[in-house]
Amino acid sequence: MLTVDEAQALVLDAVSALPPRRMSLLEALGCVLAEPVVAPIALPPFDNSAMDGFAVIAQDTRGATAEAPRAMKVIEDVPAGSEPQRRVQPGTAARIMTGAPVPAGADAVLLVEHTRPGLPGEVDVLAAAKPGDNIRPRGEDIEPGEVALAAGQALGPGELGLAAALGGTEVSAIRPPRVVIITTGSEVVAPGEELRPGAIYDSNQVTMAASVLAAGAQVARCMHAADDEAAVAEALADCGEADLIITVGGVSVGDYDLVKTALQRVGEIKFWRILMKPGKPVAFGHVDGRALFGLPGNPVSALVTFELLVAPVLRKLAGRTECLPAAIKARLLSDVSHKPPRREYVQAVTRRAEDGYVVQPQAKRGSAMLTSTVGANSLVVLPEESRGERAGDLVEVIPAAGAVL
Amino acid sequence: MLTVDEAQALVLDAVSALPPRRMSLLEALGCVLAEPVVAPIALPPFDNSAMDGFAVIAQDTRGATAEAPRAMKVIEDVPAGSEPQRRVQPGTAARIMTGAPVPAGADAVLLVEHTRPGLPGEVDVLAAAKPGDNIRPRGEDIEPGEVALAAGQALGPGELGLAAALGGTEVSAIRPPRVVIITTGSEVVAPGEELRPGAIYDSNQVTMAASVLAAGAQVARCMHAADDEAAVAEALADCGEADLIITVGGVSVGDYDLVKTALQRVGEIKFWRILMKPGKPVAFGHVDGRALFGLPGNPVSALVTFELLVAPVLRKLAGRTECLPAAIKARLLSDVSHKPPRREYVQAVTRRAEDGYVVQPQAKRGSAMLTSTVGANSLVVLPEESRGERAGDLVEVIPAAGAVL
Repeated sequence: MLTVDEAQALVLDAVSALPPRRMSLLEALGCVLAEPVVAPIALPPFDNSAMDGFAVIAQDTRGATAEAPRAMKVIEDVPAGSEPQRRVQPGTAARIMTGAPVPAGADAVLLVEHTRPGLPGEVDVLAAAKPGDNIRPRGEDIEPGEVALAAGQALGPGELGLAAALGGTEVSAIRPPRVVIITTGSEVVAPGEELRPGAIYDSNQVTMAASVLAAGAQVARCMHAADDEAAVAEALADCGEADLIITVGGVSVGDYDLVKTALQRVGEIKFWRILMKPGKPVAFGHVDGRALFGLPGNPVSALVTFELLVAPVLRKLAGRTECLPAAIKARLLSDVSHKPPRREYVQAVTRRAEDGYVVQPQAKRGSAMLTSTVGANSLVVLPEESRGERAGDLVEVIPAAGAVL
Repeated sequence: MLTVDEAQALVLDAVSALPPRRMSLLEALGCVLAEPVVAPIALPPFDNSAMDGFAVIAQDTRGATAEAPRAMKVIEDVPAGSEPQRRVQPGTAARIMTGAPVPAGADAVLLVEHTRPGLPGEVDVLAAAKPGDNIRPRGEDIEPGEVALAAGQALGPGELGLAAALGGTEVSAIRPPRVVIITTGSEVVAPGEELRPGAIYDSNQVTMAASVLAAGAQVARCMHAADDEAAVAEALADCGEADLIITVGGVSVGDYDLVKTALQRVGEIKFWRILMKPGKPVAFGHVDGRALFGLPGNPVSALVTFELLVAPVLRKLAGRTECLPAAIKARLLSDVSHKPPRREYVQAVTRRAEDGYVVQPQAKRGSAMLTSTVGANSLVVLPEESRGERAGDLVEVIPAAGAVL
């Protein structure tokens, strides 16, 4: 049997980032940049005023106070977006708005609050300015030719804003992976239909689709295949648009586990037993050059193996470099039992306390217990060799993707 | 001037959750449940086998060992999804698959590994079973009539899976808020166009749209209005589909801040100066019954005020109860200066270290410095009265929405 760490290393090793494509800035939200963005212009593009006030020559205001104001001739109004027409000379000032270009000659901006209206066409300066006061120099944020965004940078609102501020409308980024989901099992009935005796409703289609979306990837298609080799093979032949295929169910040891046989026929598939609980049986491989995961059919097993094995692969396909789920330390609020030798993941609610995190394992536990996932925002990790952990013990916790703890 | 805490309390107080509507399970991902989901059936719906094996009467296997196996007649095969046809009697067993209903009479399932093939039509039992072994009893996850999901529950993959397992295809949930974004300023040019002297590219449209999406809300429309009262009023009149309106720019003190005047004419708007940096001037109010934020035009100010004021309001509109951004403690990796009296938010990179979090403030700093946001995943909070913090000090940090730290 593989350890979880070995399985994670193997699946990450087997895939690489998808090819980049040009996309609009908003489409690239959450994507990873494939080609650097080099600044074609300076930011800001010109010296500009950080405040509303008067552009002056700093030396010209020396000694000005409220008691001994200095009168200056106002030569021009410079609103944001305009181009100053006149040069500021000694004894003159230009009224200037936030973001407007600083007129030639001026080397400081006096705040409105440090002036008062003077004689017609004049302003009284009530304080001395220092050179550079309230001026944002051209290029202080970035100079032309500098790398604004490096390849590999994940694109959030700020990064996309910088690309736009430089005049860009598109970037070359890794697109989100597309996933096809195939649930299996003749015992499974679609929600909304009648539940015949011996049948259960299919919950895996929605848990997997929701997990794919929560991981920032796209659901290309959802299918259901009966426990029938031909049906599974047909579904697998219909995954043209997928970067990754997930099958759920049909990978354990029983006589009816036909998915296994179907998979082995159409692709290069390895069947694993992983030293983890829930989720021991997992298949991984390639079909027509696409990565494929065969996850166990118990709903909590499917969710946990998704989080630990599939989500990291989706991150790598999307061009991320930190792919494995990060873990934090938290203090247990109640005892939790465990028997060797499998590493166990227990649904839990983690929250911040005075001195770190505390974690409450869910009351119910089991690979088929969907109620154990309700309100859970994390998994407690019980190491392989653990014989149980006690309230007060510090344990490892994996936050759910996107959970802010 | 308002403190940040006062401003947050005021904006949260001014809005309530949007009305619920029926939506498909997948559409409800990330939404808040408005009406409880009560279980119409038990989960599991019937006693079923947790493993592949043989359904037996436990007492009937007493004393069985590999050395002294007990032969039993195999009366039936029960695959998952089928209905057992025969009752298990002493001396008989039914072959059963994971998830299949336990036949009448049987009270335990023996693992395949604890049996071996016997004479034709028989199985040799190599170990004793205890009553209940490898059986998942009907209703162990949930009983009919129990509340499966309470109103107010945020819906993730597990919760949606539970709704599906109970046969549901829809829930009544609060839909994501729709936001209209209006950027202002005659100095602003759309990315991709030619940059005339004195003009800058509009970065706020993409930073705000991306922030809205990252907060789980929807962008109903983006508009740009020139610095002209009529243009702003026209844009505001065109927000029919919005639950929330964001304007960016035009709310400071200058002569050209016409947004202010336009807003005051069409709605009930309060203009605030908030004791925060960046982001002092913010407008908040209502236009035609819709909440409106007027954010400052400097791009970093817009991003920070969004995170601290707009995102909490979007969460409340979406039915969340914990709306304010959560803060964590982190150890500073370098000195950071500060002058009273405004609470300051500094772009920073936070990561987990051995004993908690460490945080590195970005090298550049300033309300117009978009490069300061590149790679930042958090904001360092410098309290109002701080005179600067030193490397090694424990400071408060607000993770960016969706950042996994």
